[in-house]
Amino acid sequence: MSETPREFAYIDWIRHQVAAHPNVLLGIGDDAAILSTTPGSQLLAAVDMLMEGTHFTLPPASPQAVGHKALAVNLSDMAAMAAKPIAALVSVALPQGRDDTIGQEVHAGLQQLADRYNVAIAGGDTNSWRGPLVISVTVLGESTGRGPVRRDGAQPGDWIMVTGSLGGSLAGKHLHFEPRVHEALALNAAVDLHAMIDISDGLSADLHHILEESRVGAILKADAIPISDAAQLADDGVSPLQHAMGDGEDFELLLTLSPAAGRQLLAASPIELRMSHIGEITDGTGCLLRDASGNDSNLPRRGWEHQF
Amino acid sequence: MSETPREFAYIDWIRHQVAAHPNVLLGIGDDAAILSTTPGSQLLAAVDMLMEGTHFTLPPASPQAVGHKALAVNLSDMAAMAAKPIAALVSVALPQGRDDTIGQEVHAGLQQLADRYNVAIAGGDTNSWRGPLVISVTVLGESTGRGPVRRDGAQPGDWIMVTGSLGGSLAGKHLHFEPRVHEALALNAAVDLHAMIDISDGLSADLHHILEESRVGAILKADAIPISDAAQLADDGVSPLQHAMGDGEDFELLLTLSPAAGRQLLAASPIELRMSHIGEITDGTGCLLRDASGNDSNLPRRGWEHQF
Repeated sequence: MSETPREFAYIDWIRHQVAAHPNVLLGIGDDAAILSTTPGSQLLAAVDMLMEGTHFTLPPASPQAVGHKALAVNLSDMAAMAAKPIAALVSVALPQGRDDTIGQEVHAGLQQLADRYNVAIAGGDTNSWRGPLVISVTVLGESTGRGPVRRDGAQPGDWIMVTGSLGGSLAGKHLHFEPRVHEALALNAAVDLHAMIDISDGLSADLHHILEESRVGAILKADAIPISDAAQLADDGVSPLQHAMGDGEDFELLLTLSPAAGRQLLAASPIELRMSHIGEITDGTGCLLRDASGNDSNLPRRGWEHQF
Repeated sequence: MSETPREFAYIDWIRHQVAAHPNVLLGIGDDAAILSTTPGSQLLAAVDMLMEGTHFTLPPASPQAVGHKALAVNLSDMAAMAAKPIAALVSVALPQGRDDTIGQEVHAGLQQLADRYNVAIAGGDTNSWRGPLVISVTVLGESTGRGPVRRDGAQPGDWIMVTGSLGGSLAGKHLHFEPRVHEALALNAAVDLHAMIDISDGLSADLHHILEESRVGAILKADAIPISDAAQLADDGVSPLQHAMGDGEDFELLLTLSPAAGRQLLAASPIELRMSHIGEITDGTGCLLRDASGNDSNLPRRGWEHQF
C-alpha cells in the first residue's frame, strides 16, 4: 500500500536495523520476502493481533513492551507446536500526533526479542492513522526432529505436565514474558510429546482445548498445580488456585506424554525450568479437579466460573 | 489470545468454511498452521494491513469488498514476485455493536477470492473492540519455474512493459480488482523477466522503486502509457495521463525484460490482458518522460507533483 514520507522513513530505518539471516534470501524492500526452509521440514505459521485499549494500554505498558509482547505471543505459539521460529512479518497502525517515536520504540521491543531467538524481521506493512496502536505479527517456523506437536494427540493414561508456575500474569508477566521456545525444542528432542499447547486462555480453558481436540477427559490434582508468587500475593478475594486455573496469559507449556516419558523428564530434565506433573488424561470427557482430600468436582472451561 | 464466546463462535464458523488444501497439513484450530511447500521451491511471504477510515470507509465499501481487497493486495504482492500463492493468515479487529454479521461478510469476501486462487485460509486471530475495522492478511507462496522476480534486476536497454490500463482506480477498481497472479505466472513461464512490481503507489512511484533498487534510470513514452476509461472520464481538472502516472492502486504488473523477450510477448502473448511497451531502462538515474513531440521532462516519484 502507499506510504507517506514519514512511513517510508520509518520503513527505511527498520530495513537497516535488520541483520542478515541464513533463512532470509531477500528481506524488507521488495513486494515479498524470500525465505528458505530446511529440506524435509514442515512450515509452521501463526498470527496474533494486539490492539491498544483491548490487549494493553499506553501507559502503563511502554511501546517497547508492546513490541516485545506482539512477537512473544507468536513465538509462544511456535513453542506450543515445538517448532523453531525463523522469521516474522509485522503490520502496524501507528497513532498519529501522539508520540513521534512510538514506531521506533515498538520496533526496538520486537527487534530485541527477535535477535535473542534468531528470528528475522523479514517483512512488514507500516501505516499511521488517528486511531489506537494496532500491531499484528505473523511468525513462520519450521518443524524439528520429532515433528510438530499438536493439540489432538493426548491419549488416555498420559501424564499432564506444565512448565513454570501459573496465575497472576496481569500483574506484569503478560507484558514481559519469555516464550518457552528453547524449552519446547529441548522437551521434543528428549521425549515423545503427545499433545502440547501454550497457556494463553488459562490452564483450565487450554486443557479443555486439548481434551476436545483429542476427544479425551482429564483429572487434575489441585495440590500439584504450580501457583506463581503473583497469584499467591494477589489478595483480591480470588484464591491463588483460582488465579492459576483461570487467569491466562501465563505462556507456559501444557503437555501430555506417556507416564514413562514423564518420569524420565522428572528424573533428568532437559530444561532448567520447573516442570510439574499435575494430572492424567482419562478416556472420559471433560475435566475433574481432585482436591487434597480426594474429592472430585467438575472443572469448567473457564476455571473460575461457579467453581470455587 | 483469549477469545470471547462470540469470537469463538466466529472462529468455529470460519473453521468449517475452509476446505481441505494439499499444502495445508493442519489448518485453523491449533496454535499454528502446518504447511508443506514443494521441495526445491523458495518460500515467499508478504503482509498488508487495511484500516477503516484510512484505506476504506463503510459504506461505500461493503465488508465483503474489504475482505476481497485485504487478500487481493497480498495476492498482488505474490504476483509481483511471480510467486504462486498457497495460504493466507488473517488477523482482524471487528467493530463491536455496529453490525453483528460484519465478520462473516469480511470472511465471505476473503474466502471467495481465496477459493478462486486455490489459497487456503490456514490461520487467523479474531478480535473485537469498540474501534474501527482493521484487517491484516499475510500471504505465503512459493516460487515457480524461473524463480522469484525481484525489483533489483532491471538492466540498461530493457524494455519497460505494463499490463492492463492505469489511473482512476479510486472510482471503484481499487476495491474489486483482480490480482494479476495468473498473468505473472504465465509471463514468468514464457520469458525471462528482469524486474517486476505491482502498481500500488502509482506508475511513477513504483517505477522509481525498480530504478532505485536496480540502480538504473528510465525513459517513459507519454503516448504509450495505457490510460484507463476511469481516468479518461474523471473530468476533475487532472489530466488522464496525470491520473495514470500518479493515482496508484491499479494493481497491474510493471516489468522490465530484454527487447527480444518484449517483442516475443507482443508477437505471441501468453496472457489475454493487454500489454504495453511504455519505455526503456537507461544507465542513468531517475526517470524522463518523453512527450509526443520528443521533448523530455523529469518525472518525479509522485508522478503528479509540480509536473503537469
